[in-house]
Amino acid sequence: MVIVMSPEATERQIEQVVERVHETGLKTNIVVGQSRTIIGLIGDKRVIMSLAVEALDGVEKALPITSGYKLVSREFHPESSIVNVGGVTIGGKSLVVMAGPCAVESREQLLESAEIVRAAGAQFLRGGAFKPRTSPYSFQGLEAKGLEYLAEARAKTGLKIVTEVMDISSVDLVAQYADMLQIGARNMQNFQLLRAVGRSGKPILLKRGIAATIDEWLHAAEYIVNEGNSQVVLCERGIRTYENYTRNTLDLSAVAAIKHLSHLPIIVDPSHGTGRWRMVRPMAMAAVAAGADGLMIEVHPDPAAALSDGPQSLNPVNYASLMADVRELSVFLANR
Amino acid sequence: MVIVMSPEATERQIEQVVERVHETGLKTNIVVGQSRTIIGLIGDKRVIMSLAVEALDGVEKALPITSGYKLVSREFHPESSIVNVGGVTIGGKSLVVMAGPCAVESREQLLESAEIVRAAGAQFLRGGAFKPRTSPYSFQGLEAKGLEYLAEARAKTGLKIVTEVMDISSVDLVAQYADMLQIGARNMQNFQLLRAVGRSGKPILLKRGIAATIDEWLHAAEYIVNEGNSQVVLCERGIRTYENYTRNTLDLSAVAAIKHLSHLPIIVDPSHGTGRWRMVRPMAMAAVAAGADGLMIEVHPDPAAALSDGPQSLNPVNYASLMADVRELSVFLANR
Amino acid sequence: MVIVMSPEATERQIEQVVERVHETGLKTNIVVGQSRTIIGLIGDKRVIMSLAVEALDGVEKALPITSGYKLVSREFHPESSIVNVGGVTIGGKSLVVMAGPCAVESREQLLESAEIVRAAGAQFLRGGAFKPRTSPYSFQGLEAKGLEYLAEARAKTGLKIVTEVMDISSVDLVAQYADMLQIGARNMQNFQLLRAVGRSGKPILLKRGIAATIDEWLHAAEYIVNEGNSQVVLCERGIRTYENYTRNTLDLSAVAAIKHLSHLPIIVDPSHGTGRWRMVRPMAMAAVAAGADGLMIEVHPDPAAALSDGPQSLNPVNYASLMADVRELSVFLANR
Amino acid sequence: MVIVMSPEATERQIEQVVERVHETGLKTNIVVGQSRTIIGLIGDKRVIMSLAVEALDGVEKALPITSGYKLVSREFHPESSIVNVGGVTIGGKSLVVMAGPCAVESREQLLESAEIVRAAGAQFLRGGAFKPRTSPYSFQGLEAKGLEYLAEARAKTGLKIVTEVMDISSVDLVAQYADMLQIGARNMQNFQLLRAVGRSGKPILLKRGIAATIDEWLHAAEYIVNEGNSQVVLCERGIRTYENYTRNTLDLSAVAAIKHLSHLPIIVDPSHGTGRWRMVRPMAMAAVAAGADGLMIEVHPDPAAALSDGPQSLNPVNYASLMADVRELSVFLANR
Repeated sequence: MVIVMSPEATERQIEQVVERVHETGLKTNIVVGQSRTIIGLIGDKRVIMSLAVEALDGVEKALPITSGYKLVSREFHPESSIVNVGGVTIGGKSLVVMAGPCAVESREQLLESAEIVRAAGAQFLRGGAFKPRTSPYSFQGLEAKGLEYLAEARAKTGLKIVTEVMDISSVDLVAQYADMLQIGARNMQNFQLLRAVGRSGKPILLKRGIAATIDEWLHAAEYIVNEGNSQVVLCERGIRTYENYTRNTLDLSAVAAIKHLSHLPIIVDPSHGTGRWRMVRPMAMAAVAAGADGLMIEVHPDPAAALSDGPQSLNPVNYASLMADVRELSVFLANR
Repeated sequence: MVIVMSPEATERQIEQVVERVHETGLKTNIVVGQSRTIIGLIGDKRVIMSLAVEALDGVEKALPITSGYKLVSREFHPESSIVNVGGVTIGGKSLVVMAGPCAVESREQLLESAEIVRAAGAQFLRGGAFKPRTSPYSFQGLEAKGLEYLAEARAKTGLKIVTEVMDISSVDLVAQYADMLQIGARNMQNFQLLRAVGRSGKPILLKRGIAATIDEWLHAAEYIVNEGNSQVVLCERGIRTYENYTRNTLDLSAVAAIKHLSHLPIIVDPSHGTGRWRMVRPMAMAAVAAGADGLMIEVHPDPAAALSDGPQSLNPVNYASLMADVRELSVFLANR
Repeated sequence: MVIVMSPEATERQIEQVVERVHETGLKTNIVVGQSRTIIGLIGDKRVIMSLAVEALDGVEKALPITSGYKLVSREFHPESSIVNVGGVTIGGKSLVVMAGPCAVESREQLLESAEIVRAAGAQFLRGGAFKPRTSPYSFQGLEAKGLEYLAEARAKTGLKIVTEVMDISSVDLVAQYADMLQIGARNMQNFQLLRAVGRSGKPILLKRGIAATIDEWLHAAEYIVNEGNSQVVLCERGIRTYENYTRNTLDLSAVAAIKHLSHLPIIVDPSHGTGRWRMVRPMAMAAVAAGADGLMIEVHPDPAAALSDGPQSLNPVNYASLMADVRELSVFLANR
Repeated sequence: MVIVMSPEATERQIEQVVERVHETGLKTNIVVGQSRTIIGLIGDKRVIMSLAVEALDGVEKALPITSGYKLVSREFHPESSIVNVGGVTIGGKSLVVMAGPCAVESREQLLESAEIVRAAGAQFLRGGAFKPRTSPYSFQGLEAKGLEYLAEARAKTGLKIVTEVMDISSVDLVAQYADMLQIGARNMQNFQLLRAVGRSGKPILLKRGIAATIDEWLHAAEYIVNEGNSQVVLCERGIRTYENYTRNTLDLSAVAAIKHLSHLPIIVDPSHGTGRWRMVRPMAMAAVAAGADGLMIEVHPDPAAALSDGPQSLNPVNYASLMADVRELSVFLANR
């Protein structure tokens, strides 16, 4: 951290800041500039981050130099991680696709979806049994029944199951059925839940929060890994901006940023990222070209009848066509 | 809802949309414009909101006409609500102030804070026993011990206690000690938690999510009221924008918007809203002038030593001065 | 500026950065931390800001310590400036109000508006003769004819005239008629125009850009003052955020920020800031309480017939009521 | 447009709205819903857009159904346009690359850059002779001298020249030297300039504004085409969001949106879009996969010595490698 003193700061104020810093065991290095003095702090990052020196007289601002995450940082773990979900690896050479309906709506709808997903060559079936919905009057998911249907679909198709867990009280239940637990965007900073899934022993898919910075997202992953669970995959799903043509603004530069800052794999969800099924194919292609390790795609046997997110779901024909395209592109890029 | 058909939509596609809508029991009214047809839907709002017609061929977009919340809407409840917390009313004529440290750090720090808060004339003591923190390495709160100190402070000062509950598993515990349960910005869409506090019987302070729209915020309140608990107070605490001089952008226009859309009381937190103690006073004054029913203010006996949010906390002298100013302004406005 | 080296930076890379910096005549101060080295730069701010060291090997990032504006900074000019527009002062004790229609639509409409504005006690008549419009098919203003009507309204009412200049080719023309030239939000970074109005000798009202940071806004003011024109007043008019209930998000914390960072006066435009006439009064009150030096208000004899921005314009009755309220509040605040 | 009446609107208020609409020659269609009445408007789009009915009593809001642009809309021009710049076509099968330094700094720097750009196979040389800079103390460009160097570089390499024009007073000058005129992000809504370049007869590269919606961007293009110049290419260059790891957030979904809404070609600038040279390659690949018609890339013989935007400029080696990659990808995609 670098403490920037105000131009009117007195000698005494500078001394007081230095004393406060030294009391914590940190060392300082003072740089006297033309109009102001800055104080560099040296020592344990965690101690540095706990200081609130901006409240001291004469301090203009404090600039952090390093980020506070460590376990998920590429700085301390230069090699890319590969996450293994029951034999399917994420983060290696080949593209992983997780597809399925937004919500599990019925046994028939799910089994039909699973067949469509399998036929086109995905590795994971997605589908929400517990659904976070803006309105209390919207469909909230089939809950335990939905989990059973997911397990049945796995038995029939061999697909791995990834599904959202919304609360610590249902972590155990969901973990009994799912191969991978998803933390949704609204829960990215539900820290108790992050700790709980960290202790679950299951691989975790951590979606980026609706307005989360990349730094906050990696800190959220740090919460999980800090519980001893390093099987974490990140998922970019669009951020909230002023643009309203799309449901969210899909931030594909996050793929490149994460690859630079962290060793964790990252996949992209162009369905939520755009909110419009017509845009899913071009954004899926772009995600693969940007270096994403996988995709999460919403597909529904009859999107117009979907209880949730119909407008962004592909129908079976468009989905199969998308799968052919992204696989071909992925192979082309891997062989260069 | 109004369904806008694309200019190239065929007669058959328009018919199919109408058929789908009629299957749900809704009625339609078709408007044939110069370049496109639009279809107005008439009937139960909840049925309308569950439709996913954008996935049908020929549909360009669907525009919602009304919002999905009802219990918290002024439309169905024209009179302003007053929330009563153990005899202190929020939403009436007089300004309510909730003040205290960001986090409960120790018995001494809390009791000293409570005395400062009481002396200057606030009605509530705030202070986090459970703290949501971006980094797992930051101070996470004293938890149960912190709640005990809060209860002790109440006993000594007569202040009401408002404190955050972060998870459904601790709702009962926090409810034993607190007079009012706070839902933090990160949990505004933690729907299970909203339901749980809705069933707790306690008055709720619902902070606006970091990037929540006013519409989403009112839907979150609807989750609570829908469980039978109408004692909800909203708290504007700044939203995330591109501007980074302030920690958040305090959206004071939300006060006027909420007063128009809802009957619930609303208070403002200029400490989190700006992240800078120098800006707390002008923004508190502005909040009162905008019509807020109360304020939430961070104050600390020694902000520079605070374990959390020191840079935005007032010291006792500035806090007392602020209280005098806002009270005087509030009285002036009430007497006009 | 502080240069942060990457943890893997070699000794040689650090030396190369230092050499590059020394070549420019700047001095360096090296701080060796636990995981990385940082290099503080000392010397002329303008030289420091021209460096592109982030492109050198081993550099992780460069953090600016000070901002690049100087003439508009309170650091170099601690006393608040007062701008004098033909005898009306902005930035002193008393609140200044600029009111009028969005656009000059006709002689009758303008003269009627001017009478309404004068009667309720404003000092300035606003009204656009040149209108920046999103669509080429919207009303674009009466241009020269509109300026003549503004001059006639001044002659009849004694009000000062503030009106927008959109292009360098019309600066001379507008300056012949107006008492104060307005730079609109879309032109805040039209640097040639900023220079031209800087040379015009007229007082300038500089609106904040639609997505401008406070730092960029002050740099824009610096362009004007750097041409020798220190008669600059800033105007907060709302920024673009994800929230769409309001047309923009009025950032009242900008008032406090500007008062801290700069000596220039600042006024607030709650009409554009909210886009809804119902919200103009509460936000005008809030602006005054936050410490704004003035207000800009849209008023129209018949808002529903306005050719531009009708939905955010007050009718004469609401305008008169607003004026009474803000004047009373302003007097109350000044006398405390 | 659909006018939504408030639930408390009286019969008389509804009649008054209808009367106002009929006075303009438009027709209405009234839909009486369960809680409120909506009024659909039928007739000339330009008349509809000029109404300010939200200011009438009883009106809650007005929802636009169609956008106001027409000439640039795919709705009225289903076939994709191809823009021809002196024999180089943009919008056809093959990818177009515009590369070069941010600013023309000297004859040597530009000629060296041009050679690098040509050698790696781009079609256009970019480079600013007039530079919009946040600070008045930053390098502002070589102006006329810079244009001469650009012309010399064209003569030596055969590359087409694209360069920014910042003001109507220099349109003629820049048009003498450039093959294509660039409108920068800050000038996207400088409507006088849009009109002037519309009349210049030159092909135009229109960058998206820093916080422009896709709708505003297409309206800006409409201004140019409305002057009779249909040779317009759009350029996505990142939008301003809360995320600050990147300089801007590159919105690649805009490529798919523009392809759906408009017939104009679109290229992508990953250099400004990310602000970090390490991210240029992955985002360039993603842009091509998303369907962009071309790329704009910053390259500099010595990025660390650049007078502008060094941190986001590629060095010659990285640039050549990027060009090989994107060309290969483009060919692969075209041949599928």
